[in-house]
Amino acid sequence: MTTSFNPELDLVVARVIAAPRPAVWNAWTDQASFEKWWVPAPEICRVRDMDLRPGGSLRTEISGDGADFRPHLTGCFLAVEELERIVFTDALVGGWRPAETSFMTAVIAMKDHPDGTEYTATAMHRNSPDRDRHEKLGFHDGWGTVTRQLAELVESS
Amino acid sequence: MTTSFNPELDLVVARVIAAPRPAVWNAWTDQASFEKWWVPAPEICRVRDMDLRPGGSLRTEISGDGADFRPHLTGCFLAVEELERIVFTDALVGGWRPAETSFMTAVIAMKDHPDGTEYTATAMHRNSPDRDRHEKLGFHDGWGTVTRQLAELVESS
Repeated sequence: MTTSFNPELDLVVARVIAAPRPAVWNAWTDQASFEKWWVPAPEICRVRDMDLRPGGSLRTEISGDGADFRPHLTGCFLAVEELERIVFTDALVGGWRPAETSFMTAVIAMKDHPDGTEYTATAMHRNSPDRDRHEKLGFHDGWGTVTRQLAELVESS
Repeated sequence: MTTSFNPELDLVVARVIAAPRPAVWNAWTDQASFEKWWVPAPEICRVRDMDLRPGGSLRTEISGDGADFRPHLTGCFLAVEELERIVFTDALVGGWRPAETSFMTAVIAMKDHPDGTEYTATAMHRNSPDRDRHEKLGFHDGWGTVTRQLAELVESS
């Protein structure tokens, strides 16, 4: 299944990362690496579940001090295509069960680029008000920041 | 991803159908056959989308007179495993986009049985109130009826 970008419903951040695709893929799929970039510093991330298969649970927590953690993302993987694409949604929890509330589906795509890897993260919403709300909540700042953190992590290693 | 039945959140209908699995699978995945059993007679079903792949759209309509159709199910396939299992949800629409509202994820399973095919349809809900509401709305009557219709269709052909 391919998904196409709908500017009225979707938001996207894209960045060329100066590292090969396997390095970017590993930084996404290795829990310890993922925790290093998934939330904007100095906030701290903890992965509770990362069951990388369709129907698998993705659950992260966030903390300001590294002691008290609160829920961050609770979702479900929909597609995991090695070195290519990861799709997850917060409309479902692990095992594909409907979630109490839902906001978005995210599509993470990785492609070869002359300078490394073209990394694209798209957030799909159910309607324009949700898209606009996400934008006002700081989508570009937040997702832009963590994508920069991802790039810095893999470019420095 | 396997899913396990949770009696507090899920509802299930099961039936042994006196026909081989490929016949049951075909009655599910061939649109013209599917329309013959998917809604309780004498209501009439029309398939708008049946894109049998993860992320594909499933959209059906229902009519009392065959002229005026209204929306019935709008959802998204999550897993399509030939002759084995079909998973879909109304929490997402085609392309995995979050739906305006959501109620359930359905898991259709087919297994060999000495008398034909063991057919199981499980509806997973987000919480007990939704499960109980679905039961009061006539889950067992409705899903039981269409499963009987499916059985009669494939057993007679």
